[in-house]
Amino acid sequence: MKKIRIGIAGLGRLGRSHALNLAFKIPNAKLVAACSVVPAELDFAKNELEVEELYDDFAKMCASPNLDAVAIVTPSVYHPEQVECALKAGKHIFCEKPLAVTVDDCKKIEKMAEAYPDLVFALGFMRRFDPSYAYAKKKIEEGAIGKPYMVKATGVDPDADAESLLDSGYVPKSGGIFIDMASHDIDLMRWFLEDDPDSVYSVGTTVKHSRFTEQGDFETAAAIFTFKNGGIGQLHVGRASVHGYHIETEIIGTEGSIRVSPVPAKNLALLYDKTGAVQECVRNFPERFNESYAIELEAFCNAVLEGKKPLVNVYDGTKATQIGYACKESLDSGKLVKIEY
Amino acid sequence: MKKIRIGIAGLGRLGRSHALNLAFKIPNAKLVAACSVVPAELDFAKNELEVEELYDDFAKMCASPNLDAVAIVTPSVYHPEQVECALKAGKHIFCEKPLAVTVDDCKKIEKMAEAYPDLVFALGFMRRFDPSYAYAKKKIEEGAIGKPYMVKATGVDPDADAESLLDSGYVPKSGGIFIDMASHDIDLMRWFLEDDPDSVYSVGTTVKHSRFTEQGDFETAAAIFTFKNGGIGQLHVGRASVHGYHIETEIIGTEGSIRVSPVPAKNLALLYDKTGAVQECVRNFPERFNESYAIELEAFCNAVLEGKKPLVNVYDGTKATQIGYACKESLDSGKLVKIEY
Amino acid sequence: MKKIRIGIAGLGRLGRSHALNLAFKIPNAKLVAACSVVPAELDFAKNELEVEELYDDFAKMCASPNLDAVAIVTPSVYHPEQVECALKAGKHIFCEKPLAVTVDDCKKIEKMAEAYPDLVFALGFMRRFDPSYAYAKKKIEEGAIGKPYMVKATGVDPDADAESLLDSGYVPKSGGIFIDMASHDIDLMRWFLEDDPDSVYSVGTTVKHSRFTEQGDFETAAAIFTFKNGGIGQLHVGRASVHGYHIETEIIGTEGSIRVSPVPAKNLALLYDKTGAVQECVRNFPERFNESYAIELEAFCNAVLEGKKPLVNVYDGTKATQIGYACKESLDSGKLVKIEY
Amino acid sequence: MKKIRIGIAGLGRLGRSHALNLAFKIPNAKLVAACSVVPAELDFAKNELEVEELYDDFAKMCASPNLDAVAIVTPSVYHPEQVECALKAGKHIFCEKPLAVTVDDCKKIEKMAEAYPDLVFALGFMRRFDPSYAYAKKKIEEGAIGKPYMVKATGVDPDADAESLLDSGYVPKSGGIFIDMASHDIDLMRWFLEDDPDSVYSVGTTVKHSRFTEQGDFETAAAIFTFKNGGIGQLHVGRASVHGYHIETEIIGTEGSIRVSPVPAKNLALLYDKTGAVQECVRNFPERFNESYAIELEAFCNAVLEGKKPLVNVYDGTKATQIGYACKESLDSGKLVKIEY
Repeated sequence: MKKIRIGIAGLGRLGRSHALNLAFKIPNAKLVAACSVVPAELDFAKNELEVEELYDDFAKMCASPNLDAVAIVTPSVYHPEQVECALKAGKHIFCEKPLAVTVDDCKKIEKMAEAYPDLVFALGFMRRFDPSYAYAKKKIEEGAIGKPYMVKATGVDPDADAESLLDSGYVPKSGGIFIDMASHDIDLMRWFLEDDPDSVYSVGTTVKHSRFTEQGDFETAAAIFTFKNGGIGQLHVGRASVHGYHIETEIIGTEGSIRVSPVPAKNLALLYDKTGAVQECVRNFPERFNESYAIELEAFCNAVLEGKKPLVNVYDGTKATQIGYACKESLDSGKLVKIEY
Repeated sequence: MKKIRIGIAGLGRLGRSHALNLAFKIPNAKLVAACSVVPAELDFAKNELEVEELYDDFAKMCASPNLDAVAIVTPSVYHPEQVECALKAGKHIFCEKPLAVTVDDCKKIEKMAEAYPDLVFALGFMRRFDPSYAYAKKKIEEGAIGKPYMVKATGVDPDADAESLLDSGYVPKSGGIFIDMASHDIDLMRWFLEDDPDSVYSVGTTVKHSRFTEQGDFETAAAIFTFKNGGIGQLHVGRASVHGYHIETEIIGTEGSIRVSPVPAKNLALLYDKTGAVQECVRNFPERFNESYAIELEAFCNAVLEGKKPLVNVYDGTKATQIGYACKESLDSGKLVKIEY
Repeated sequence: MKKIRIGIAGLGRLGRSHALNLAFKIPNAKLVAACSVVPAELDFAKNELEVEELYDDFAKMCASPNLDAVAIVTPSVYHPEQVECALKAGKHIFCEKPLAVTVDDCKKIEKMAEAYPDLVFALGFMRRFDPSYAYAKKKIEEGAIGKPYMVKATGVDPDADAESLLDSGYVPKSGGIFIDMASHDIDLMRWFLEDDPDSVYSVGTTVKHSRFTEQGDFETAAAIFTFKNGGIGQLHVGRASVHGYHIETEIIGTEGSIRVSPVPAKNLALLYDKTGAVQECVRNFPERFNESYAIELEAFCNAVLEGKKPLVNVYDGTKATQIGYACKESLDSGKLVKIEY
Repeated sequence: MKKIRIGIAGLGRLGRSHALNLAFKIPNAKLVAACSVVPAELDFAKNELEVEELYDDFAKMCASPNLDAVAIVTPSVYHPEQVECALKAGKHIFCEKPLAVTVDDCKKIEKMAEAYPDLVFALGFMRRFDPSYAYAKKKIEEGAIGKPYMVKATGVDPDADAESLLDSGYVPKSGGIFIDMASHDIDLMRWFLEDDPDSVYSVGTTVKHSRFTEQGDFETAAAIFTFKNGGIGQLHVGRASVHGYHIETEIIGTEGSIRVSPVPAKNLALLYDKTGAVQECVRNFPERFNESYAIELEAFCNAVLEGKKPLVNVYDGTKATQIGYACKESLDSGKLVKIEY
């Protein structure tokens, strides 16, 4: 079995998860290098993952002749220079989202990727690889719901994590609730409607954790999109879901609709007790999307091996960023915003 | 609109419910008489239901020329004589289940009913009129699941009522858990499989409320039936359902299956809270089958008006009794019992 | 049992349903009069409902000394004069929604109702009486979801009825999709959030039945509301639900959420066949809300008997109309609309 | 990370699945050897899995000093001699179920395992490792349903596979429907009730595929068990589930119950179309239990590494076999069977 030799940059929470998948769960990948400025992360790679090559400098890792590809799981602000470096070294790239912090940086990365058409550049919108979302897409392509014309997207983080998020100092730097939370939902809307929105109007509120207001952000936000092809998008993002991590997406078409996870069930067990029939829910995104992270990296390796286009490309990253900023602009201004690309 | 003029005998808990339905909810019925040996019940009929004719003697009520039919909701031990009396007076009969206390009495009532073929004799297995069960039957008749060959029936009373049941003194007189609880399930099995069982083996246990043992009965029982046509029945009855009143029936056929109320939902509202996604359940049989009681009486009136056969007849009552006693015999003896009719 | 004597005006589809309920299903009501300019409707009232007093003139019916109350189920354009007439005659009023065609007419009716504070004026937002919605409200009042701050409302009529609707000539006269369809959803939003919206932005599209465009209306529309207390409303109305009549409402609070009918189940039966596990759905509003119509009229009669305030009052009618027109204004103008009351 | 070095014997359908898991999905395992008498299977191990040591003789593989453990996925008739050989060579053993073909052979293996108490002997009842079943067990251990006293188990293979099964010639050699199909359900009953059954009565029928009768077996069977501690078991196994692979288990306790997969959902997507709300179901056991197979092997490796007792031991295998034969005896004789151990 041909294996893609990969080096990973960034071994924080998500990077560590990717590294574990690359090391142990993905048949067509071999994790041969790791790069981090945090010594403990390199120790982890060496001792737990048996990674052979360890780097504290991204350029040096790219210079290794033993790598076919790199996985970039660093803060997005570093993505433009790291992408450039990797492409110049002839490496295929799996890049975590968000693609970049600004639309300008996204555009720069687009140009770089275009300059190396033979190198795969895949972006980490892993929901597209989730078995339930992939099934929904397949059913739609088979015609199960006719032509899709409306998407209702919901993404609410667990309330159990809200206070620690507020303590972390992350919120003021997050870019605001839409930039921070909505990119996956925006990507799914585009994917399912096969089109881009041309306008957005958004609103926000904070009811439970007033510190979101103090930190210049919102606890809950909602938006309504019109798409160029007549489609409509409804979006709800929030940070205080009491029952768990609630990601739900409904795609409505002319002949039916598909709803993904209206009950974000933890598993197939149903408890009947004094309260009634109780379905416990997933608690956070690693629990919900654990499998998707492995599938997306396996798909990346397959794309490299087979010379195929990745399912999620650089333009998907730029557009999610543009649309996210339009949501933010509407939220900040209280006005309807026309989205330009 | 032609209305059937009805007199009701027995205004206990269930009789009262039937009387209210006849007085206020059934367009083709007019409740004109009530019979009870309990003065307060007659007061209720007079004051709350505006019933014109009040009797403390069943025979006198039957003698009234103003009645087309009688609803017999008295203890089953009185059914044989009351049925005879009503038939001789030319009244159509709606008779609550159980048809009678012994198989002999059931057979007597059969003979009487046969002697008056022009009078409708309907028995109160109201589940057949429940919209969900009626829908299941209709789908099966339309071929939705092919030929039915197995029924899995569950009927468990709410645990919330167990202690008051044990306090009531009813259990030792109930005939045992199968006679007391299983007749509806047995009737549904026969109805869906369109056949009669020829053998039964049953077992019982008591785990939570040891007083069921002290009172000579079981808290939970299960039985397995073979049917003459090759069908199989699985039955589970119990008295300690913590989440509410759990009646569930699965009918399995060659092309599919239908399950009625795997979650005995109280209504269409789903609560998401710290425990997960919670569906509250129905608490007792009046809540679950409230509508069915009205529908069965309306159907009885229609059968009378249109000269039709009732959906549930006297033989259904005899057979449910025979099968119930076979279950009891197996439970008492620990042996497989062949069922004779 | 004290009964409210009622005369009904209007025996079209919905009026007929109300009349049947009043005649046969509501213990505390007695239908004594009917008014219609359609002779066949009066024949129906006389022959099927045994109504004693028949009128072709609303004022004459109001003059009858035998009536405590009137049920007005006529076209909304006639409501102001009929309400005035009934109030002057001292009759309690149950008035179908919409309260009136214009906000001015609503305000006129408000004034009239205020002039007769001892007469009950109840409006027909029957969803509030639906057992599932009433349960949701009760759970919320008990604190089950903390403080509600967001409502996501969906109301989509069955696609099976779309073409006949388009053939009927009704659409161009309907006031547009929001006026025609959204009043119940708007009322529920206000009821659950206990507040009024102060802004709305709405969009619409037509994808399946292009005749909606030809007739100057939309097939699908969506809106986003901000409420004065910080609440958010998301609304989706449509006319092409393939799986049946889809009314769904989610109320999100600080400690949980409640979702009413995410699957608009026809009943409690679940079919397992080649396609999977299939829950058949309700086909139309009479099937979904049949019970609610009876409950709201029984509640009206109780309010009259007990001298209580009705659950839905005249102001609820005015506000639903004002908000509906604001939705329409936004849809027509493409602009965010501030809602004034 | 310490890894258990494993050799696998048998690379048929299930062996291949285990080998892929060991090679690519289980961090604490290293697949170093493979043994098969089928050359193509060894080619697969060499080329696809990069297995270093290849054998056509089980004893030779056991002689390899490079192995800590063996996974035995061969026909059960070979298990006694292979287990003996491996134990003598000092290897830990993961053995696929059924433990052996006869109770005598099971007892032999028990004795062998007892002679090597320091070697882990784990049996492949993988359902105990399924996240939903493991969750159910954990909730029960936490007290969520009080004391379990009844298990209702259902295991029905997909009808889509029935004809090819009948063509395969396997059925007459399968030992009958209970031996072939019920061992997992029997193991779950024992696990959840923490006890052994002391009697069983079983019945069978064939309705759809008459060839099951021709081949001396049944299409559907049901059994009822009493347990020594008063527990009751209901079992339904079959080979003609139209909607997919239906494994369902309900554990009923004094304070509630847990039902695992009443709807064997394929994923979290729900389709709404003309038929209603449709949940597609899993098609077969690899789809349903794919994850469980990997988890059980990872747990085996952990048990070896940590010197722990395996979750499923040799006695579980013997008892499932004894109980299965008791079911068969009852089915064949039509009599209640007392189970001796």
